[in-house]
Amino acid sequence: MKSQRFIQSCAVAVLLVVSVAVARAAGERPNIIVILADDMGYGDLACYGHPSIRTPNLDRMVAQGMRFTDFYVAAEVCTPSRAALMTGRLPIRSGMCSDKRRVLFPDSKGGLPANELTIARMLKSRGYATGCVGKWHLGHHPQFLPTSHGFDSYFGIPYSNDMDRDASAGPKGRAAFFEPKSEYWKPPFMRDAVVLERGPDQTQLTPRYTAEALKFIRANKAKPFFLYFAHNFPHVPLFASEKFHGKSRRGLYGDVVEELDWSVGQVLDTLRAEGLAENTLVFFTSDNGPWLIFDTHGGSAGLLRDGKGSTWEGGMREPGIAWWPGRIKPGIVNRELASSLDLLPTFAALAGATLPRDLFLDGVDMSPLLFGAGPCKRDTMFYYRGTQLFAVRKGPFKAHFITRSGYDKDPVAQHNPPLLFHLGRDPGERFDVAKDHPGVLADIAKEVKRHRATVTPVQSQLEDSK
Amino acid sequence: MKSQRFIQSCAVAVLLVVSVAVARAAGERPNIIVILADDMGYGDLACYGHPSIRTPNLDRMVAQGMRFTDFYVAAEVCTPSRAALMTGRLPIRSGMCSDKRRVLFPDSKGGLPANELTIARMLKSRGYATGCVGKWHLGHHPQFLPTSHGFDSYFGIPYSNDMDRDASAGPKGRAAFFEPKSEYWKPPFMRDAVVLERGPDQTQLTPRYTAEALKFIRANKAKPFFLYFAHNFPHVPLFASEKFHGKSRRGLYGDVVEELDWSVGQVLDTLRAEGLAENTLVFFTSDNGPWLIFDTHGGSAGLLRDGKGSTWEGGMREPGIAWWPGRIKPGIVNRELASSLDLLPTFAALAGATLPRDLFLDGVDMSPLLFGAGPCKRDTMFYYRGTQLFAVRKGPFKAHFITRSGYDKDPVAQHNPPLLFHLGRDPGERFDVAKDHPGVLADIAKEVKRHRATVTPVQSQLEDSK
Repeated sequence: MKSQRFIQSCAVAVLLVVSVAVARAAGERPNIIVILADDMGYGDLACYGHPSIRTPNLDRMVAQGMRFTDFYVAAEVCTPSRAALMTGRLPIRSGMCSDKRRVLFPDSKGGLPANELTIARMLKSRGYATGCVGKWHLGHHPQFLPTSHGFDSYFGIPYSNDMDRDASAGPKGRAAFFEPKSEYWKPPFMRDAVVLERGPDQTQLTPRYTAEALKFIRANKAKPFFLYFAHNFPHVPLFASEKFHGKSRRGLYGDVVEELDWSVGQVLDTLRAEGLAENTLVFFTSDNGPWLIFDTHGGSAGLLRDGKGSTWEGGMREPGIAWWPGRIKPGIVNRELASSLDLLPTFAALAGATLPRDLFLDGVDMSPLLFGAGPCKRDTMFYYRGTQLFAVRKGPFKAHFITRSGYDKDPVAQHNPPLLFHLGRDPGERFDVAKDHPGVLADIAKEVKRHRATVTPVQSQLEDSK
Repeated sequence: MKSQRFIQSCAVAVLLVVSVAVARAAGERPNIIVILADDMGYGDLACYGHPSIRTPNLDRMVAQGMRFTDFYVAAEVCTPSRAALMTGRLPIRSGMCSDKRRVLFPDSKGGLPANELTIARMLKSRGYATGCVGKWHLGHHPQFLPTSHGFDSYFGIPYSNDMDRDASAGPKGRAAFFEPKSEYWKPPFMRDAVVLERGPDQTQLTPRYTAEALKFIRANKAKPFFLYFAHNFPHVPLFASEKFHGKSRRGLYGDVVEELDWSVGQVLDTLRAEGLAENTLVFFTSDNGPWLIFDTHGGSAGLLRDGKGSTWEGGMREPGIAWWPGRIKPGIVNRELASSLDLLPTFAALAGATLPRDLFLDGVDMSPLLFGAGPCKRDTMFYYRGTQLFAVRKGPFKAHFITRSGYDKDPVAQHNPPLLFHLGRDPGERFDVAKDHPGVLADIAKEVKRHRATVTPVQSQLEDSK
């Protein structure tokens, strides 16, 4: 009788061990979704204080997840920022930046080099299904497309929605942006490596991307998946579908953001409906700050200074929202430093991927921040504009060596000694405190020296054109 | 048998009617608490987008209640704003404004006239216990004190905490504010109409006020009560108690706001603990925008323009948070126009008070906004600076006739035609759209004419000094 009981207990114990192991294996490879907006400002969401734009789905994502106050991207314009997100490395290392041509254009020859490890390729090695929906902007020639960089599939416009302007259509110059019609622009719309059409109806972009994203989720629910869902909006020219056009209080810009918010809601609802929510990490952010030169067609950085094209905070600090019901505690405001550079190493840790030993990463695993398990390893942030290091943040302090506004005509200013701001006390970067903190500047100078020793400039991918 | 059943049914029906009537009577007289900050900016709370100030209790109040995006006070400095809140009337009607002396000073003779109906006196007539804790600033002579205006009790400093500066103590001028010590200022600290002390330890102000507020709540829980809890902070000079001093990332200003947030948490927790939460409306706001001339010792208006002393949005749009578990739906962002002027008529409706027929009110009952019962009656807002009408908002449009920055040295500018901004599309008031909307300016001109016909200037209460 005793032995029989013992055997029964063992059987139960074995079953428990097995089921825990299965759960753990699944937990080790959660689904991962990155939703990326384009040119969205730090202050454009209701949950980041915008008064007139309604973002109930992102507000809900925040209420159920974690909102970062100090989340950064690694560049102040599109191509280098996206390269950094996708590789965990500063663009200076991959050649995905330039001081001449700031991003890739339709006549560019280059793209993300084949030897760069992308999130998609890394996760693919761990058995993930990988899908890219939306804007790529890391090279539109075949060898640079998502399908050449670890994605099983691609669906979208491979660069910005204001490229391939039809010079014969609509008003000249900026005027076309303020009364935009889709036929003024003729960018390619692709599936995988094939151009489906030129000049897609941009009022349908967000709904089409969303439908594709939901299809990908449903089609891959049986195995772990990675979805990189990168919208073309709210980059100008702005387009919303009929359901959203003219509906917001913030004008066309608000309409577009409210449609993006709807799209986020569709993703979260689909994860819930498919029973995937508890095994899926969703991270929302944008590629760089608001394009202020477009007036009300550009977004807002809230109380942060300046916007896109600038290394002031408004250019590179972004909304950052993480959601994973059951793993990330709801309603947390996280004020630690974090970066889009950290996504690759974080996802590597979650997926149990081993990274190549010789890979130099600028990102760190941010899991301790997400799951409340410990302090953050990151305490510095490097603000590059093109190939030049304009500013460095260490802890709450930020030193500017060079400043330049995103308003194109504003002059470049060199600062020696550097300007120094305390971003906690003065998030708007108004009060230079360099003279009060000589030790901080010396400390930052040491960080710069250490950092520069790790950088070997490479050939830029952005400068050659046909 | 039939008749007995009928009698039983009647008895049940009668009991039901009686209990509904009792519930309704209690529901008609909820407890009401107004918590007022001093010089807090639109952008100073985490729930309004501030990155470095932690306000978990106000964030919780928002999550459980309603957050207004377009809540206004009726003046851009202290005395007139508080007079408007307390009476539901523009200060131009009560004489509580002036173009010479902008607020009441220790040597002022005047105060809120005896014939003005205050929220306290109105609620007293409905059987409320009424308490005032904190800053009054509507007259410090006996006939003007809270206890002469319908409050059963008063505990606090009757004006601003930077008044009664001790000229013999500390550094001269602005320097005293940047390294503040409590002994540099000697304002009176009163209980009811008696001065308890001069120059209270300002590091203890928020804890003392909070203790008094909690005592009032507990002492009056058997009957309906009205508590007007008006903090002296974050008006300069800034002081936090030891528990908060040096603890925030936003420096001393953040320490002070975080202590105010703690205080709000104490109030909400006490209401829960005493079983009063479901029968208490709590409303949180501030008297005017941030005092920007004090650099990091002043707050932030977020993406709104300018601050205290200005009729730009940053001077008069404020955080507005309403909390009433079970009556106000949780987690609502309300984007309708509302004003501190609306509190008196709203509280009158909730308490079932009948207002004098000849009382001219600028406020409207905002209950439909709070309880989701219907649209808002308010669609205009008048922005006075002293006795002059500087700007008018109608719907999303705001016309400026005169502008002046809160930075004292900035010049006054007259605008004819007026500047016109669309506050939904352009909450930062950057893009004049007057030429695109001639009809709107004409419409606003009519509103101004209608409004002016209701105003009979009275003797200012702020100009006489001893």
